[in-house]
Amino acid sequence: MTIKAWGAHAGDQPLQPLDIPRRAPGAHDVRIDIAYCGVCHSDIHQVRSEWAGTLYPCVPGHEIVGRVAAVGAQVTDFRVGDLVGVGCIVDSCRQCADCGEGLENYCDHMVGTYNGPTADAPGHTLGGYSQQIVVHERYVLRIRHPEAQLAAVAPLLCAGITTWSPLRHWQVGPGHTVGVVGIGGLGHMGIKLAHALGAHVVAFTTSESKRAAARALGADEVVVSRNAEEMKAQRRRFDFILNTVAMPHDLDAFLALLKRDGTMALVGAPATPHPSPNVFNLIMKRRAIAGSMIGGIPETQEMLDFCAEHGIVADIELIRADEINAAYERMLKGDVKYRFVIDNASMAG
Amino acid sequence: MTIKAWGAHAGDQPLQPLDIPRRAPGAHDVRIDIAYCGVCHSDIHQVRSEWAGTLYPCVPGHEIVGRVAAVGAQVTDFRVGDLVGVGCIVDSCRQCADCGEGLENYCDHMVGTYNGPTADAPGHTLGGYSQQIVVHERYVLRIRHPEAQLAAVAPLLCAGITTWSPLRHWQVGPGHTVGVVGIGGLGHMGIKLAHALGAHVVAFTTSESKRAAARALGADEVVVSRNAEEMKAQRRRFDFILNTVAMPHDLDAFLALLKRDGTMALVGAPATPHPSPNVFNLIMKRRAIAGSMIGGIPETQEMLDFCAEHGIVADIELIRADEINAAYERMLKGDVKYRFVIDNASMAG
Repeated sequence: MTIKAWGAHAGDQPLQPLDIPRRAPGAHDVRIDIAYCGVCHSDIHQVRSEWAGTLYPCVPGHEIVGRVAAVGAQVTDFRVGDLVGVGCIVDSCRQCADCGEGLENYCDHMVGTYNGPTADAPGHTLGGYSQQIVVHERYVLRIRHPEAQLAAVAPLLCAGITTWSPLRHWQVGPGHTVGVVGIGGLGHMGIKLAHALGAHVVAFTTSESKRAAARALGADEVVVSRNAEEMKAQRRRFDFILNTVAMPHDLDAFLALLKRDGTMALVGAPATPHPSPNVFNLIMKRRAIAGSMIGGIPETQEMLDFCAEHGIVADIELIRADEINAAYERMLKGDVKYRFVIDNASMAG
Repeated sequence: MTIKAWGAHAGDQPLQPLDIPRRAPGAHDVRIDIAYCGVCHSDIHQVRSEWAGTLYPCVPGHEIVGRVAAVGAQVTDFRVGDLVGVGCIVDSCRQCADCGEGLENYCDHMVGTYNGPTADAPGHTLGGYSQQIVVHERYVLRIRHPEAQLAAVAPLLCAGITTWSPLRHWQVGPGHTVGVVGIGGLGHMGIKLAHALGAHVVAFTTSESKRAAARALGADEVVVSRNAEEMKAQRRRFDFILNTVAMPHDLDAFLALLKRDGTMALVGAPATPHPSPNVFNLIMKRRAIAGSMIGGIPETQEMLDFCAEHGIVADIELIRADEINAAYERMLKGDVKYRFVIDNASMAG
């Protein structure tokens, strides 16, 4: 079966319309008519070959929402017409300890929604900038939001779970003071989720202009991190800091804000290293720098259900597929509040 | 009261005999006849002004053991003649949350055993390279080892607690695979303690020549970290790594050895930064780099009691006070197994 998609043939070429194959659904597969797909910064890195190993043609997209179009004979949890989502993961070994604990994101054989190894043609997975996708039922999420919110639900599948997972793992909740560094696609979700989890949320931004926006997202306080006086007033206040900034920056400025035993979790990986953090900042208060990568399937479902219950969606700007190259340029300038989402119906024409 | 000590008048001068004052014991003070004092690498950094803020005259030494010579009127837990120890801490605010939890080591007003602020002359604390010390009872530890082991108990007061505290904080025990990086003053205690706590211990050294010695200390396995093949075989094996190396080195080589959710705790702070660790190594398996600094008074007593019960002491080389400058030179070459301890009786002459 051949469908329409948007992707690139090489790292130095713009995205363009493509025809791509999708496998016929197997017994445990779900075929999804994709309604919307969020545009993640990883999509740009990958399609432009800024990380090692991009395979072409490359069809990005791992913030997928839509309706079930068909199910395999053994699928019992999903029916045609259901609202569903697919995130960054479409397969894993299903046998290791990580898979057993529902942390498929840490499985050594995790298969990404695009650019991952697969037996399907063309030999690597093709993502959500496409009309349909076929995914094993284990990796399909149920969406309980109203259908009118569907486009704004899409970014929860990556930006949402990438911030939810560390907030939950480090047990953020009432009584905690939590910092969220960076107010972009990830950070704006981090603020919303930490706030909804009951924490006192302080947003850190380099832009004076983002103060009001950060408060509107749910931040109790906003600190401009370029203001040394403001930063100094925050020292030793934080139980946990979620750092969403993928550009190299001074980690020490934020480590110094943690209480004893506080952790700063990094969810962005810079293309070139951060300046080396000062070990004294770790030693003096038993602080930690940790990393966290997306999240597992059960916790993604947990996050989606939590968001449905609390009325949480992403703040998005909806675009047509043929606007994707321009959207990339705007993302690189930080000119989006806070996530582009492709209306996949625009691919039909 | 004036006593004999060894110290320096400036960072570029050798240590020499000094006469120093000690306060008369207050109501809560314990006066200790120092029998032995361990020689810590920090002593060299501090006395040579390699860290900021050394005050002179500088009398180093914070691995102190001896006998109680006198007690203040309000002291009820110690009596003249008791075997006691003093570590890195001789005072703190006693009122903050850290002090309340027995983590005086993280108190913002912790006073180091030497070079710390004090009302006593000369205005900064003078350490254990001296005949006597006067310390508030809160910071005095009880030693339950046989007296014959007293010299070898001295290094437990810094090297012992500095490795014990992170092993306990990260709950190392049976069923855990634990790495200890560096086999020096700290590392040799880390191996002994992790082994006694029931963990499977793998020692990492740069020296092929230390293999047998590391096994004798209690390591179940020894890995030469310069051997890429040996290192590769250790990937994703470790629940916890205690890194005692204070020289700048490649942290990624060890981070890659941690399991998912594993932590590497640094207890040494390099004078110049480590190469910046790769964020992907943290993100891909939710790993953490943390720091830990000495330990609190209750956990120091817990460690001393554990060591007494398990017959654990440091491996030491006993020296006279007038051998201290030569000992420093040997330490800088790594030529000691594994801790020099001063016989403070040698100061009397």
